[in-house]
Amino acid sequence: EHAKIAFDVLVDLDVGDRRTGILPGEPAVELAKAIGKHARLHVRGVQAYAGFASHVVGFEERQKTSREAMSKAVETAERLAKAGFDAAIVSGGSTGTYNIDSGLRGVTELQVGSYVFMDVDYRRIGGKSGAVYTDFQPSLSVLATVVSTTHADRVTIDAGTKAIDTTTSHRPEVKGRGDLVYSRGGDEFGFLAGSPLPRIGERVELFVPHCDPSVNLYDRIYALRGEKVESVWPIAARRESQS
Amino acid sequence: EHAKIAFDVLVDLDVGDRRTGILPGEPAVELAKAIGKHARLHVRGVQAYAGFASHVVGFEERQKTSREAMSKAVETAERLAKAGFDAAIVSGGSTGTYNIDSGLRGVTELQVGSYVFMDVDYRRIGGKSGAVYTDFQPSLSVLATVVSTTHADRVTIDAGTKAIDTTTSHRPEVKGRGDLVYSRGGDEFGFLAGSPLPRIGERVELFVPHCDPSVNLYDRIYALRGEKVESVWPIAARRESQS
Repeated sequence: EHAKIAFDVLVDLDVGDRRTGILPGEPAVELAKAIGKHARLHVRGVQAYAGFASHVVGFEERQKTSREAMSKAVETAERLAKAGFDAAIVSGGSTGTYNIDSGLRGVTELQVGSYVFMDVDYRRIGGKSGAVYTDFQPSLSVLATVVSTTHADRVTIDAGTKAIDTTTSHRPEVKGRGDLVYSRGGDEFGFLAGSPLPRIGERVELFVPHCDPSVNLYDRIYALRGEKVESVWPIAARRESQS
Repeated sequence: EHAKIAFDVLVDLDVGDRRTGILPGEPAVELAKAIGKHARLHVRGVQAYAGFASHVVGFEERQKTSREAMSKAVETAERLAKAGFDAAIVSGGSTGTYNIDSGLRGVTELQVGSYVFMDVDYRRIGGKSGAVYTDFQPSLSVLATVVSTTHADRVTIDAGTKAIDTTTSHRPEVKGRGDLVYSRGGDEFGFLAGSPLPRIGERVELFVPHCDPSVNLYDRIYALRGEKVESVWPIAARRESQS
């Protein structure tokens, strides 16, 4: 005997990322029909995360890109409804497009997440009325220590490739020290240049370039209110990046 | 009362990395003298890891670079000995320079480690008699699955920034499929282009560009002999990348 379990499923759409999902429109409807043949699978709509839209610099251009992508998802959901599916869910959006996609008729869910932490990349995409995206404040930082001051032009800190993801084009920023510039120093180290340089043993907080793969490097987050550690959050999903 | 504990210490030398350590020669001797004033600290020699020498492409050029760096360490140890210290230890070297530094008189320890796993970067530095460094065989790979085949020109695998460090200039290589080319697809995804493309659900093994920060992404290593998992090794030091 089979267990009497049914699954609601969303059709994953490739609306421009060329990463995962079926192409929108007719191919998605065909896939839904194939899914529909399974008694225990119920199509409930579409998911269309458009990562390529999230980081478009400049609000107008970002709006244009995201609307174009999400309209493909909305249209596909409408086609599914016409074909007899209960396609009530249209999931997409991101921290970078929350105030764009939320205004689109038919979108029912926003896949925002980075807004809780923010990062250097998101700050640089620009807001609705400015060059810096200030809708959300940075809350995530990596604590590093100055471990060497041998040279006059820079100091070494204990935060390198193992401590901060640096695969994006932006570098970590030192909280409260916009005059310091981070550069990579290998697996365990980073360099800070600028003036005045921090002293040996001094601690600095680094806003990360990209929050997701930086969080992935750690087992826990220390949640502070002011200087007080209010809670320690285990990073439960860290190991779940592969299927 | 103080506990009766004594520590043997090495003087960390900056022989060219400009990362950590005191400058060789007189500054190192001065530091050793300052350390020597502490009754419980005993200078035993120097450590001089020269990361900048490890990845020099071409054996002759690498040999020149590493000899120059390590000779500063050997000379400093000799100065320390003249100044009355028991400076018997000269630690340095790397997987890339093991057959260079082991021939230097005075070097007593090689800090090799990557040779156990190897990676794409080390393969590309060239061996003593060839363009590929074949002294050690690649043993470390990341297992990934093809999760999307929507497009004709490439497939998507579930190995992105969270699964493989890609901060070096080389990309992951697919074991046994030199015709496939990896490119980054974000936090969770990577792309493989080439011909013939692997099928949906197919698994591929990826040799990582840089072993250290890739190992750091995982909690355990599955040790295989042929197709059989002989042991599971916990990665105990994963969290120890910061002081």
